[in-house]
Parts: sequence; structure tokens; C-alpha cells
Amino acid sequence: MKEKLYTPGPVEASPLILQAEARPLIHHRTPEFRAEMKKAGEGLQRIFQTDDSVLILCCSGSGAMEGATVNMFSPGDPVMVIRGGKFADRWMNIAKAYGAEVTAVEVEWGQVADPDAVRKALKANPGTKVLFGTHSETSTGARHDVKALAAVAREFDVPFVVDGITSVGAMELRTKDWGLDMVVGGSQKGFMMAPGLGFVSVSARARAIAAASKTPRFYFDFNKALKSWDAGGDTPFTPAISLVRSLVVAIELIEEEGIENVWARHAANGAATRAAMKALGLSIYPSVSSEALTTVLAPEGITSDAIIKTLLKRHGMRLANGQDSLKGRIFRIGHLGLYSAGDILAVVGALEDTLASLGHGLTSGAGLSAAQQVFAKSAHRESAAV
Amino acid sequence: MKEKLYTPGPVEASPLILQAEARPLIHHRTPEFRAEMKKAGEGLQRIFQTDDSVLILCCSGSGAMEGATVNMFSPGDPVMVIRGGKFADRWMNIAKAYGAEVTAVEVEWGQVADPDAVRKALKANPGTKVLFGTHSETSTGARHDVKALAAVAREFDVPFVVDGITSVGAMELRTKDWGLDMVVGGSQKGFMMAPGLGFVSVSARARAIAAASKTPRFYFDFNKALKSWDAGGDTPFTPAISLVRSLVVAIELIEEEGIENVWARHAANGAATRAAMKALGLSIYPSVSSEALTTVLAPEGITSDAIIKTLLKRHGMRLANGQDSLKGRIFRIGHLGLYSAGDILAVVGALEDTLASLGHGLTSGAGLSAAQQVFAKSAHRESAAV
Repeated sequence: MKEKLYTPGPVEASPLILQAEARPLIHHRTPEFRAEMKKAGEGLQRIFQTDDSVLILCCSGSGAMEGATVNMFSPGDPVMVIRGGKFADRWMNIAKAYGAEVTAVEVEWGQVADPDAVRKALKANPGTKVLFGTHSETSTGARHDVKALAAVAREFDVPFVVDGITSVGAMELRTKDWGLDMVVGGSQKGFMMAPGLGFVSVSARARAIAAASKTPRFYFDFNKALKSWDAGGDTPFTPAISLVRSLVVAIELIEEEGIENVWARHAANGAATRAAMKALGLSIYPSVSSEALTTVLAPEGITSDAIIKTLLKRHGMRLANGQDSLKGRIFRIGHLGLYSAGDILAVVGALEDTLASLGHGLTSGAGLSAAQQVFAKSAHRESAAV
Repeated sequence: MKEKLYTPGPVEASPLILQAEARPLIHHRTPEFRAEMKKAGEGLQRIFQTDDSVLILCCSGSGAMEGATVNMFSPGDPVMVIRGGKFADRWMNIAKAYGAEVTAVEVEWGQVADPDAVRKALKANPGTKVLFGTHSETSTGARHDVKALAAVAREFDVPFVVDGITSVGAMELRTKDWGLDMVVGGSQKGFMMAPGLGFVSVSARARAIAAASKTPRFYFDFNKALKSWDAGGDTPFTPAISLVRSLVVAIELIEEEGIENVWARHAANGAATRAAMKALGLSIYPSVSSEALTTVLAPEGITSDAIIKTLLKRHGMRLANGQDSLKGRIFRIGHLGLYSAGDILAVVGALEDTLASLGHGLTSGAGLSAAQQVFAKSAHRESAAV
């Protein structure tokens, strides 16, 4: 039996979306394909909640992050990164690789950035060219308050670039209203697709910065990408044709449900999962939880490796372990994309059985009841389509 | 009716390969996926004819070219590019973007590099760190003698990096025997797949150069990619899972036919197409033809735009136009990947009709007879398996 993925990317992909990948290829330099690109790009604008162009790149999320980094400064420029997890560190590592002078706002793993700390840091570093932050930090499961952080960046007129890889299409994110200069997304997350596409929204201010940037770059040069896009849905290099066509289907599914309903469903799934874990005597790791995944501390005396392995063996469900120093200490339950209340109950039930089998004391059904009570109060009991 | 692609990438993709893209996703950090990656990587070694590791990158061919460039020098280093087409120029543009001092060996478009000219250039530029060349120049349809050029590079102990994007899996290419340090391939070419994967073979010497390179890079840092690969089929960033799984099928299809048979089939298809075009009174554009595509000069008084448009309208077959200054002057018939003798006869027959309808004088059937005579002498009359 195929494992069911409860991992924060890749996620369970919709069969409708996967099937679109299998359609015979069309050539990319044709009106037919350009029409699909435009459809995808306009759909992404609605999902990102912006009028900015959203580039569709042939790369994984990390490639899109590189694009959102190298176009935003020139070598030697001072930039600022809000840390707090493995993916925030990726901003720092890319920026350093391309010669930026990086100031980090340190955030303890599992905690979220304090807007006041960012304000203080920006005050202390007046020449800062760009601020990098993370919406849903996949390594810890924390949700940073991007709206509040954007307001702080605006006080200093500093462009703000956000990793939304596990948040776009899953959690409330308002690129335009919040004033975000770039937001990065990825196909294998809220879009319920295979990996291979990265997305980046580019504000007018970010366009101007990209045009002036002296950072060495070629494949991820957004000037080229924007010029091609503006010419009518073109790309400077061969696009991932089959993935782009499956993106069109993904957007249709999201919009059939309605983006605000998608956000509400994820919020309900997150709240139900957290309630269930607490009812089983476990602790949630982050101080503020992302709605795309739930990160749980393994109970005293049981490693998360054992929980993950047992759950997979007994129930065919795959969770994610912690990364780096968190390996063995936490497990991460992904529920971004195509997950219904029933899917949440299934994994909670399986975790009750798994934890009990590993000697963790619990009342059978306690997690399920807690989850069910959250769903009862939510309008999002129903499964997502397909 | 769906258009049939006779374009030099994307090509007609095998339905078997496309269907593999539609399978439910598996997680990439699992023994199951690592086994597929290893299978793909080992298959690529056989197709590239090398013991070197072949990296599987989530990007288009141009991204893979960027990887093969930035890891091979440090900023300010002198490098050499053999020109002669749009894609050779890509080597130059990437190298310049990353701060190399580029010496170009100029080759007129449509001509192929003279090994003596390269020898002279290397003698005149003794500090050259790396030589970049092209096997099948897709913009002109020329086939460069990579084996002879590699021998020249070896005289000077200069590493040789080859764009094999439209040659790997289509034309005779012997990475090990010819001593090539890096060869770049792409999924939407000889592999009969959708675009989205780039491949790069990395010699021991290239590994050492990558380890010492100071070029700024992150996503295309081959040190990270090789370290992950050596650890057992891993990737530093999320791989394009569905495309990698379809690559495994593509390799199976190629090996079922046999790589030398694939080369011979492409050689026969190329020879038959050229013979047909000549029999219709047309001229072949390049001095030495690639076996992946046939580039033909439009006859006096007829633009290639008209030929391409009419062929598409009357027969549903798509050719490629010339690029840049060649637009309107040439048409390119792609036959790399899944093309049988029957497919060649079909496009020749359709071109006879198209050219006649545009007022080009020809004897009906003359192209078909010429093609058929080539096939009669070839062992590769039979279609490739689906």
C-alpha cells in the first residue's frame, strides 16, 4: 500500500493535478502554452493576493529563494535576516554566498520574531537594503507575524522579502495589503503538486531594485524573467511544461474551494491537530503554530524516530522528523494542501495507537474527541474536493 | 487534433514516460526514492558513457549550464568559449555574468569549430582554466567534433565542458573515452520527457576544480550536490520527484532499444531527412549536421515562417523557426527522441505538399524516395518502441 504523506512537502498530490502532468506535451513557444502560462500567472496573483507579477520558475523552492535574494542587493550591501529555523538560515546562507553583509535578528528555534526586536535592529542598522523573513518556518512549525513585521519594515522604508513556501495557498497571506515586496512559494506545498516549480511575486519596488542589482546571476536573473513575462507569458528558458499545466489545474481546485475557505480549512486542521496532541499529554513545540504543519515534542523517554517509524509501520502514514539538532526530539505532522477533517482524525487515531504501543500513557480516543470538538466549532468539517 | 512536435526540444514525449509523472508522490527522503534516484543516476552514467557521477538537477538545461559554468572557475579567471550559435553564446554569457575573462574562438554560424583554430587559441592563451564547447548546436543544427576538440584540450591539459543538451541520448557521445570533464543534458531532448530536469556529469578533475572555485553560488553549488549524491542518492534541495520517476522509465526505454541502436537510429533519421531535403532542391544549412535535428534553408522567395505555418495548418506538424538573425531564413526539423523512419517519412511527405503549395517546384515523392533509399541501406528502418 502506498504510504500516505503527512509531511510538510511533498504533500499528498491531487490525482487530478498529477494527471495533468501526463498530458501530451505542447511546445512552449506557442500561443496555446502562453495562454496556459498567463492563466497560471493570473491565478497565482489571486492566491498571493497581489497585482504584482508572480514569476513561475523551473526549480525547487530553494532556487526561487536564491532568485528572491540575488536580485535584491548588490555585493557588499548590508541586509538583514530574521532567523529562527533552518529555512530562515537559508536566506542568510544565500545572501552570504553572494557577498551581502548580513545582520541577523536572532530568534530562538520554536519562537517567533518579536516586531520590536526587528525595529530595534533596523534602527541600529540604518543602511539595511532588504529584510528577509519567513512566514511558516517549516523546520520548527512556527508562524511568524508577517503582517506586523511588514509594518515595521515599512517604518524604515526597507523592502521585505518573505519565504511563503509552506504558507502560500494554505495560510492567510495578503501580499498587497501587507506590503510584501517578494513572496516565495513552491509547487509541492499548498498547491498539492509535485515539486519542480518555484513562484516569486515581485513588487514595483523590487523590480527597480532588481534592475539596479549588480549581483552576478544568470538563470535567476529576474530582469530577464520579468521582461519575458511582460512580453506575454514567456520565460527566458524552457519552462517545466507539464508542471505548469498541472499548476493550472491546482489553481482551479483552490479557487473552486475559495482561497479564504482554504485558509479556514488549514486553520481548523491545525487547531484540531494541536488540541488532539495536547489531549494526549504532548506539547506543541513552537510558541505560535503554523497552520500548515503541527510540530510536536516527543514525550519523555520516547524518540520521535520511534514514533515516526512505528506510525509508518502500523498505519502507513509518514510524518517528518526534526532537522539538525531537533532530530529525534520532535515530529512534524504536515497538513497543507489536500487534507480534510477526516484525514486529521485518521492521523490522530493512528498516533494514539502508536504512542500507546510505545508505552506513552493516554486515554484512547482523547485525541480524537479533542480534534472533533474543534471541528464541531468550525465550518470546515467537510473534505476538500478530490 | 494535437500537433505532432518535430521541434528540437520539447520533443514528442513517450506516453509511458508521461504516465510515470502522474503516479502518486512518494517522499524524497526515503529509501524508496533514493533507490529510484540511484537507478536514474546509474542509468545516466551508461547513457553518458562514463563512470563519473551524473548530477540530476531540478532546472531546465540552461540552469544545468549555469552549474557547469560557475563551478569550473573563480571570478577573474581566463576561460575560453567555442562560439558558433545561440547556445554556445549562452556559455559565454553565463561565464561573463560570473566574472570570468572570456576568450572566444569565433565560428561562423552554421560552420563547425576547427580543432586547429582551438589549438591556436589555447596556445595564445596559456592560462586558460576551462574550455566550453557544444556538441549539437541547436540554433544552427551543426554537429561539432567533440572528440577531436577534446583531444586538443587534452594537449594543453585544459578541462573541457560540453553542452550535450540535444546530443545526449541521441548522438554518439563517449564522455569517458573522449575525456570530457562535464557534459550537460536535459530531460526534454533525447530522453523523450517533459522539461524540468538538467543533468551534468562531473569528472574527478572537475570535482577538484569545483571544490576550489570561489564563484558565488548556492543552488548550483556542485560541492553540495556531489556530497548529497555520494551520501547515497540524495539531493541538497527537494528534487522534482515526478520527473525523476519518469526519468527512470525513460532510461529503461532507451536501454531496451540499446544506446548504440538509439544513436544509429538518429543517424539514419538525420541522413534520410537531409537526403530528402536535397532531393526537393533545398540546401542544408550547417556544414556538418547534428543527428538530432536537420536545419534547412528556406528556398529563394519563400520564408521559413510560411513553410512552418502552412505545415502546421495543413498537417498538424510543428517545426522550429530560426532564432535571432536566422528567423525566417531556416526551418529546423527536430528528430531527437521517439522518432521512427515512419515519422520521418510523414514529415517529408507533408513538407513536399507544403512546399508545392507555396510554389516551390518539386517532383512529388522525390523527397520520400530519397529518404527511403537511406533507410533501405540502414538497419534502423523499424520504429522505436513507444
